[in-house]
Amino acid sequence: MNPGFSVYGVATGLLEPGDDIVGRVIAAVGDTEAERICDRDILLFAESPLSTTEGRNIRLADITPGENARALAEKYDLDPRIAEIVIAESDEILGGIPGFLLAARGNLVLPNAGVDESNAPDGWVTRLPEDADASAARIRREIRERTGKEVAVIIIDSRTHAMRLGVSGVAIGCSGILPITDERGRPDLFGHELQVTRRAIADSLASTAELLMGEADEGVPVVLVRGYPYTFAENATIESIAPDEDLFLGSLTKKV
Amino acid sequence: MNPGFSVYGVATGLLEPGDDIVGRVIAAVGDTEAERICDRDILLFAESPLSTTEGRNIRLADITPGENARALAEKYDLDPRIAEIVIAESDEILGGIPGFLLAARGNLVLPNAGVDESNAPDGWVTRLPEDADASAARIRREIRERTGKEVAVIIIDSRTHAMRLGVSGVAIGCSGILPITDERGRPDLFGHELQVTRRAIADSLASTAELLMGEADEGVPVVLVRGYPYTFAENATIESIAPDEDLFLGSLTKKV
Repeated sequence: MNPGFSVYGVATGLLEPGDDIVGRVIAAVGDTEAERICDRDILLFAESPLSTTEGRNIRLADITPGENARALAEKYDLDPRIAEIVIAESDEILGGIPGFLLAARGNLVLPNAGVDESNAPDGWVTRLPEDADASAARIRREIRERTGKEVAVIIIDSRTHAMRLGVSGVAIGCSGILPITDERGRPDLFGHELQVTRRAIADSLASTAELLMGEADEGVPVVLVRGYPYTFAENATIESIAPDEDLFLGSLTKKV
Repeated sequence: MNPGFSVYGVATGLLEPGDDIVGRVIAAVGDTEAERICDRDILLFAESPLSTTEGRNIRLADITPGENARALAEKYDLDPRIAEIVIAESDEILGGIPGFLLAARGNLVLPNAGVDESNAPDGWVTRLPEDADASAARIRREIRERTGKEVAVIIIDSRTHAMRLGVSGVAIGCSGILPITDERGRPDLFGHELQVTRRAIADSLASTAELLMGEADEGVPVVLVRGYPYTFAENATIESIAPDEDLFLGSLTKKV
């Protein structure tokens, strides 16, 4: 077989506001010769425990919903305080189904703009990191400072896909890795030039990490990928597609 | 670190109509103690080389486009013969952008219903396997008969995601593995019951495999995943969501 790559869960235990997530990860990876963090490792962080350590959790009792939030909450059957937070976290509300608003936020289209009651204390919700690229860059720098190793860092979330049951992964920020590779112009098996294909490497790595993270009480907020031959990039942003060039949004029109 | 799993590319070389894909995979995996196929391995097959061996390629010169195909081809700027094949391969055409129709086919919403000029000889197109679950079941049975090993088989394709640049993976058929796990009712880190979460294990494994397959001239049509603790299921279908319960399609309306 071709040389491959390996994927490991990093069990830090429960992370709380202000916790040193990098220190917890270094300790959990271990310090044996075989286990310590290596150059070219990729470390993937679930957004919710990371943003918890960054102080991004918010208490519902502190929120006063405005008129727009109350109207959306009524229409889509959700807590008006959550609707208020979702609006604040979104660039645009695109629509909804009962319990969820479909929101655009930076390079993402996602339910409730990532605002989530799961994995938060009662009466609190988690939000996405304020700037996931900045979080990734900070973590990467701290790992370099503390271990001397050059790694890639990806911040990930769960996502659903049109008409598919179940969640897989999506990259919401990264540092030290080219998240999307461009193969246009390369030949296919028959020597034709490939027309369309850019590969969402960071998203596929996010789904790989999701396989070990789970969504429930596993306590595996970080996954380490070793041996995958990624392309280095100091600070490459994860690009999105303009809505009118997008096959999904370009094919359909908004209801709201 | 927690025990993890490993991912290997299986380079069979170019596959042609009628080729024995299972024999080529067994040979390419190798027969050393360390490398031969093991019980509980997961083998992921790219749909295009698989369907090529199944005789699913079709010659454009043999196609006479009908009125509907000619109208869609005019509207969305594609070859009317391809539009004709896409219609035949689809349950419903949902819309389009220049060069592509957005099609519903079984449990998938995908561009051109999987009809593709890449990786086919000049003047031919590839189509998805006629019944990818049946293909997966056949491959799994043949591997059992020839090696005595019980593996899981997943047939995969590339997919784009709303507003995201680049492709990742999607499972279009499987055998011997539960493709979607249901975690509703399990506790989260704070003991709340999880409300929504089903995990698209097969889709996440498909994205993992995409990392080694690529889309160009790599000649890696199969990926082997070893050590991932999946749930066995003899014949579990990959379920889709009804459009009105779906966050994407339920939030938006059709243009056509």
